[in-house]
Amino acid sequence: MSRAAVDAAQAAQEIPVCDADLEEVRRWDREDPIGHFRERFELPADIVYLDGNSLGALPVETHQRLEDVISRQWGRDLIRSWNVHGWIHAPERVGAKIARLIGADGDEVIVADSTSVNLYKLLCGALALRPDRSVVLSEPGNFPTDLYVIQGAIAGATPARRLRLEPADRILEAIDDDTALVMLTHVHYKTAAVHDMRAITERAHECGALVLWDLSHSAGAVEVDLNGCGVDMAVGCGYKYLNGGPGAPAYLFLARRHHDSFISPLSGWMGHRAPFDFVDDYAPAPGIRRFLCGTPYMLGLLALEAGVDLMLECGIAPLVEKSRRLSELFIRLVQRMCPRSSLRLISPADPARRGSHVAFAHPDGYAVMQALIERGVIGDFRSPDILRFGFAPLYTRYEDVWRAVATLAEVLASECWSDPRYAVRAPVT
Amino acid sequence: MSRAAVDAAQAAQEIPVCDADLEEVRRWDREDPIGHFRERFELPADIVYLDGNSLGALPVETHQRLEDVISRQWGRDLIRSWNVHGWIHAPERVGAKIARLIGADGDEVIVADSTSVNLYKLLCGALALRPDRSVVLSEPGNFPTDLYVIQGAIAGATPARRLRLEPADRILEAIDDDTALVMLTHVHYKTAAVHDMRAITERAHECGALVLWDLSHSAGAVEVDLNGCGVDMAVGCGYKYLNGGPGAPAYLFLARRHHDSFISPLSGWMGHRAPFDFVDDYAPAPGIRRFLCGTPYMLGLLALEAGVDLMLECGIAPLVEKSRRLSELFIRLVQRMCPRSSLRLISPADPARRGSHVAFAHPDGYAVMQALIERGVIGDFRSPDILRFGFAPLYTRYEDVWRAVATLAEVLASECWSDPRYAVRAPVT
Repeated sequence: MSRAAVDAAQAAQEIPVCDADLEEVRRWDREDPIGHFRERFELPADIVYLDGNSLGALPVETHQRLEDVISRQWGRDLIRSWNVHGWIHAPERVGAKIARLIGADGDEVIVADSTSVNLYKLLCGALALRPDRSVVLSEPGNFPTDLYVIQGAIAGATPARRLRLEPADRILEAIDDDTALVMLTHVHYKTAAVHDMRAITERAHECGALVLWDLSHSAGAVEVDLNGCGVDMAVGCGYKYLNGGPGAPAYLFLARRHHDSFISPLSGWMGHRAPFDFVDDYAPAPGIRRFLCGTPYMLGLLALEAGVDLMLECGIAPLVEKSRRLSELFIRLVQRMCPRSSLRLISPADPARRGSHVAFAHPDGYAVMQALIERGVIGDFRSPDILRFGFAPLYTRYEDVWRAVATLAEVLASECWSDPRYAVRAPVT
Repeated sequence: MSRAAVDAAQAAQEIPVCDADLEEVRRWDREDPIGHFRERFELPADIVYLDGNSLGALPVETHQRLEDVISRQWGRDLIRSWNVHGWIHAPERVGAKIARLIGADGDEVIVADSTSVNLYKLLCGALALRPDRSVVLSEPGNFPTDLYVIQGAIAGATPARRLRLEPADRILEAIDDDTALVMLTHVHYKTAAVHDMRAITERAHECGALVLWDLSHSAGAVEVDLNGCGVDMAVGCGYKYLNGGPGAPAYLFLARRHHDSFISPLSGWMGHRAPFDFVDDYAPAPGIRRFLCGTPYMLGLLALEAGVDLMLECGIAPLVEKSRRLSELFIRLVQRMCPRSSLRLISPADPARRGSHVAFAHPDGYAVMQALIERGVIGDFRSPDILRFGFAPLYTRYEDVWRAVATLAEVLASECWSDPRYAVRAPVT
């Protein structure tokens, strides 16, 4: 669907949030130009799923493709599938599809390993290009794995490096000529606050630093234009908005201008120039393929491809548009339906500065979320007190938003969450 | 099945190889104490699959479990599956099962990432413990990713290290007090030659070096006793004899005595002491869990679990026994049926020194293998001239061996492999 068609269709459905009732909201779903994508997912009828930013839902097509991958490709064609079903080229093929969602060229993105491992590859490659600078700049409260991987990569490194953490609103001024690398998450995993990718990237380049963005909470829900912003590197997750399934492989982006100068420290055989020559000495493959390491995770990779195909079929523009309308509706309905609660909006109120989820703090956030989940509204809790609600515009309906807020209002009004059973912590919270 | 029962059952079927005809070999299959496991795999009826050492076959149970994982766990229970279906503990749970196949304790093995990535984690951890030694010792022609990952890990490292390659029969004498680490593949991927794990590990320890074994071509087909040999570290592959599926995650072993002193350079959030506290500073989890990095590859991990469960149901002793009989039968039948061919046995003739595959060199090895594959006998080719035939004792039948050699004899006698179409190389060879 073209951007113009989306604009036209959605202009026709302005959202008068404060007055909307359930019937009104249902009408928006019926008139939603991308509403029919909901049927392309195997979502249970009895829940409202607002955690697609943690684990995306299962597309019908993915289920079918996985059955084919398991039964026919693995089971029947066995080892021959590396050639006859194109397994060997799947990492670049799926990477090129993801590139279209994030403003990159097809040969600048590859699917491999996890976000954490990909971050390590790019970090080490980038630091080697800035041997005379000591600082990796990030923000406190960045997604932990980003900070941990930086800490691991620079531990005991020569030359010595340090991780400097500055609050989001001080990042621009903190970039200086001792900055080797700026590493930030584009949309904050907890607050959904969006960094100004263009301004930070430009400032970093003015100072001679490189920039690495984590797109885990952006791709598929928020507009991302890596090449338009001149970004050097990016990583991102396959199992959130891209609907790649639990533990789906991740992707990495490296701008083409850096391809020849980056060497991955994880020099596994699949990143070799000629892996099937089985020679003793490592020589990196040309281009993005050098960032492969071991044998690709084929089940997860092909599941991810099905998820990305579905997203491309919809197009990114209507997803971005609907994402904002969903989160805006949620916030306004909370204002109306939960007027005297202890909820405190943590996310930016301006939808232009917010990603595709909404976070509210509540003193008893953990118990409130457990009570919601028991009532079929699946969001998640983020320590210490955050209720997080994600809106996956490919399948979340306006009605889902209405039902979630109505349930939240009921839970808060009844104080049912104070039941001791909601305080019992599960391993994953 | 107990070891004694296996011995008794198999003593009754001595293999008089030179005289065996197809009927005789079929009788061995009928009398095979573990022959019924063949029916537990979805193998096509029209092929002889001798490449389970590259990609193991699909167990029926795995197909069923994956359907459950996709449909019910991912599709219906969604994010809740991390708790309700035990996803969060799957890396240690499956690791503990693999431990039983390789002579390790349950808390010494974890499933994570790829073999290459796991090798890197352990290598860096080990080198940090031997700062005053400069050599990583391996052999030329070791599986390439092992050598490449060493090269990547030591490139530009401080203190400086070097990779020293010595032929297999000179490894013992090459270990000295400048050796930081000995890194070898237990069963050679090409020749199937087995290293003396006990002798090399003991010699390394006498000299103060650490030892890291790659078990990719051992686990599930060859006897491995890591703790009996005092091994420090090991890695291995999930998609070969363990039948975990294409690109299944790999595993790593670290002896318990090293748990507190090893730090993974890949310090991702899942290896954190408290990943869901979302704090800024990395603190490694106690024990083996610190070797997790990003979010585990759940589809592949749960497929691997089903494969390992099947292997544990059979038990390792009868697999090791049958593996030797299969490869021995293959070699003796080649001697009988291909008497004037250009085949040259590359694998050790002594089954006690051989893994679970057999390699023959042939000047036109690539074309011969293509001709075999076209006739339904699936082995593989390894550069420059090696025909490789793998015997997965959980599903390979004696009859498969007979049919494979009969087809090989026919191909060689007819010289059909000289047809130019067999010389066209596929991306994966």
